[in-house]
Amino acid sequence: MANTDNDRRPKYQRIADSLREAIQAGEYGPGDRLPGENDLMATYGVARMTARQALGVLRDEGVAEARKGAGVFVREYRPLRRRGIQRLAQEQWGNGRSIWSADIEDRNLVVDQVTVVEESAPDRVGAVLDLAAEETVCVRRRRFVLDGKSVLLATSYLPMSLVTGTAITQEDTGPGGAYARLAELGYPPVHFREEIRSRMPSKDEATQLSMSTGTPVFLICRTAYTEGGRPVEINEMTLDAASYILEYDFEA
Amino acid sequence: MANTDNDRRPKYQRIADSLREAIQAGEYGPGDRLPGENDLMATYGVARMTARQALGVLRDEGVAEARKGAGVFVREYRPLRRRGIQRLAQEQWGNGRSIWSADIEDRNLVVDQVTVVEESAPDRVGAVLDLAAEETVCVRRRRFVLDGKSVLLATSYLPMSLVTGTAITQEDTGPGGAYARLAELGYPPVHFREEIRSRMPSKDEATQLSMSTGTPVFLICRTAYTEGGRPVEINEMTLDAASYILEYDFEA
Repeated sequence: MANTDNDRRPKYQRIADSLREAIQAGEYGPGDRLPGENDLMATYGVARMTARQALGVLRDEGVAEARKGAGVFVREYRPLRRRGIQRLAQEQWGNGRSIWSADIEDRNLVVDQVTVVEESAPDRVGAVLDLAAEETVCVRRRRFVLDGKSVLLATSYLPMSLVTGTAITQEDTGPGGAYARLAELGYPPVHFREEIRSRMPSKDEATQLSMSTGTPVFLICRTAYTEGGRPVEINEMTLDAASYILEYDFEA
Repeated sequence: MANTDNDRRPKYQRIADSLREAIQAGEYGPGDRLPGENDLMATYGVARMTARQALGVLRDEGVAEARKGAGVFVREYRPLRRRGIQRLAQEQWGNGRSIWSADIEDRNLVVDQVTVVEESAPDRVGAVLDLAAEETVCVRRRRFVLDGKSVLLATSYLPMSLVTGTAITQEDTGPGGAYARLAELGYPPVHFREEIRSRMPSKDEATQLSMSTGTPVFLICRTAYTEGGRPVEINEMTLDAASYILEYDFEA
């Protein structure tokens, strides 16, 4: 794999490059243990620090992850495919199914740390939901855990004036969830906008999502609108990017 | 901002947290200079190394960026809003407009480093395009530069058997681009699937996109299908995540 370009690069970079190529070629599969520092020192005739730096490059890129006392392993990447459009179809929540049941295939997804509170609306939320200054929102916070690993934090905001006294203010919103309840109130959400950003997690997000080094988060902000164009919910989500593929299928 | 939780955290973390809060509260806007090491040392009574670590945290998160000799500044984030669905509407490319002209508002977007070559198809591409073992693809590679900053690398694959002899094999594909040419060939793309992933860039990607530390890339893989469900193009894109908001608008 040696070429003129690579040869001008530091040794640890060349070693990292050749390990990355081996991973991409399938010589090391997901979950496989990579050569350790001692192996790299022997193979490439380098110092321990150089071997360590090479493995550090792959860790920082999120290609590999260290497991305490066991070595460095190729990241096991079995992301959930989140079908952005199909999952929000009316026949989904209209028939009493939860939105995320469209995603999970044979995986085990549980929702934990559910809290529901009445709060004053953050400025950005109040502006989009077109609330008066003193209006409050119902804030639903929850965390989603996939196969034992936390993958998603979600916070929904709904105008309190709309949802007061309904199951939306309870932990369990009932069959079909909050959207089915909004439909019963005469405000079925029929149009959605999802905005996707990506950045590195804050320390706090990384802790809550048990994230490995070198892994970004997706931020998805969804706004749900009624037929008349009234925004009835904002859902701000933070996703472990290594756990998701976001898919959108649509017609030209 | 002191609370019991924070007080157990290392000093540099607490300083980073309070700077981050000040940024989020708008005390420091995009492009503003943050307090330097000397300022932080005086304000918090800490050593230079602690001040440096605090600023390092914000850099690693992509919240701030260092400018050589000038200090550390709040990241200027003026992302392009990429409207995933509207931009691919038939009236867009059907009327001779380029797809990305839907995105750019008043910004200056230029395409550079265009190369068009015939190559054997990578396995994953051949599998999706349903190619025979010996079939080749037309590979179109280009880079997009927004307001002088490279933001997107795109590589399209089209079956050579379909596009041979057409403007798709030329650098300039003509009005409406490759999709308009496919329509003329009797293969208008009418259905699209976009898959979005996010991860840290490789060294090479970071260089090509002139990326700051602590910034991930979006990977978008788009497949274009004809009415009959035939896949006619795969477009693999790598985007500087700090330069984009991906937006999808759709009906329930």
